[in-house]
Amino acid sequence: MTVDVIIYAGEVTPERVMHKEVAVIDVFRATSVIVEALHNGAASVVPVVTVEDALAMSEKFGRERVILGGERNTVLIEGFDKDNSPLAYRREDVAGKVIIFTTTNGTRAIYNSRDAHAIYISSFLNLTAVCRTLAAGGRDAVLVCAGRNDRFTAEDGLCAGAMADFLVKQYGYGTTDMAQVMQELYLGAAGDLKARLATTYHYQDILGRGYIDDINFCLQRDIYDIVPYYDPTGSIKL
Amino acid sequence: MTVDVIIYAGEVTPERVMHKEVAVIDVFRATSVIVEALHNGAASVVPVVTVEDALAMSEKFGRERVILGGERNTVLIEGFDKDNSPLAYRREDVAGKVIIFTTTNGTRAIYNSRDAHAIYISSFLNLTAVCRTLAAGGRDAVLVCAGRNDRFTAEDGLCAGAMADFLVKQYGYGTTDMAQVMQELYLGAAGDLKARLATTYHYQDILGRGYIDDINFCLQRDIYDIVPYYDPTGSIKL
Repeated sequence: MTVDVIIYAGEVTPERVMHKEVAVIDVFRATSVIVEALHNGAASVVPVVTVEDALAMSEKFGRERVILGGERNTVLIEGFDKDNSPLAYRREDVAGKVIIFTTTNGTRAIYNSRDAHAIYISSFLNLTAVCRTLAAGGRDAVLVCAGRNDRFTAEDGLCAGAMADFLVKQYGYGTTDMAQVMQELYLGAAGDLKARLATTYHYQDILGRGYIDDINFCLQRDIYDIVPYYDPTGSIKL
Repeated sequence: MTVDVIIYAGEVTPERVMHKEVAVIDVFRATSVIVEALHNGAASVVPVVTVEDALAMSEKFGRERVILGGERNTVLIEGFDKDNSPLAYRREDVAGKVIIFTTTNGTRAIYNSRDAHAIYISSFLNLTAVCRTLAAGGRDAVLVCAGRNDRFTAEDGLCAGAMADFLVKQYGYGTTDMAQVMQELYLGAAGDLKARLATTYHYQDILGRGYIDDINFCLQRDIYDIVPYYDPTGSIKL
């Protein structure tokens, strides 16, 4: 089996993911939110690409069953319940609810991967659990970094690299050249992820907006042993 | 000024390169061939995307003034004079000639970059000269790796990383996250490029086809102080 890394949402093509198992990664912060919400008992997360789709979907489920979540350009969308902060998705708010969720990059990465054999949601919070599931699937794996506005962002690469490293060492996966590069990126930075991110744009942008608690939360490794998957009806569940 | 890295030809968009200075990199072997042919006195290199375009262009220039060069799937094209080996472009063969050149990835990387402010041809053979020209241009730089069949290949990343490292340290360029990653890739491998490439697919493929002399040639750093540029008429010249 081989592990490949796609560096941002727009790079995903059907040919790159077809018949393969995909793990979508958007560390800051979409996939961290999805993992946190499902850990806290949300019934499902329904990723949608546009705000209009989110509002239409919320009518379909019934507004009282739904939490509208997500961001545009890092901030809360008008009329939505929650932004893109994982810390906002507390058990008392989300248990039993359907989260209709739209973000600039993370939900697009999931949508673009829809031709894959299976799609899992990964983050630092649950990466080892996702790796075990990928390996159990017995197919080639593609780690899809969401990136930002069709650019690579280092935090997603670090998570992809941690996963590639685990898949290589634990399960003997082969690597594409980009998977190797991400593995090296991770190994060079594993001791202090924040120090490595200090020179990067997206990290500094989020930090500058005051989201240090989100950053600290999202960079915790393997605090959850859960593997959200995207089912063919378009919901993410455990 | 900022340096960005694009990881393969298909990733180039007008928005990524417009108003910027581009250096196209296809270490194995298209840009190494172009640099070698111009160093050896070729009048120009005309990159074309298809074999049909190459034949039509050769009629336009007159067949006797032209050398038809390039490859499809690493091998000589039927009816062409030379393949994609830089060692085949000797002074006695190419001096004064127009090289009509088509390759699977390198010429596509050049063509896709045509909206840039300026396009230079880079390789290990001349990377420092290209960096000096980029810096003199005073604009943001984009290092376009050709890659292979819309996949990243490590040898192009190593050359991009060497250039990013020079631009950062010598001229104080800022870096995108991918430029940083390529810089790190290069710094981790600079002592022995072939050892780093030993686990990569494209390198092994070329090695397996018997092109060790080409590999050794293409990995020589800064043996030439020349900067080929792609002019608006579609020719590459010094």
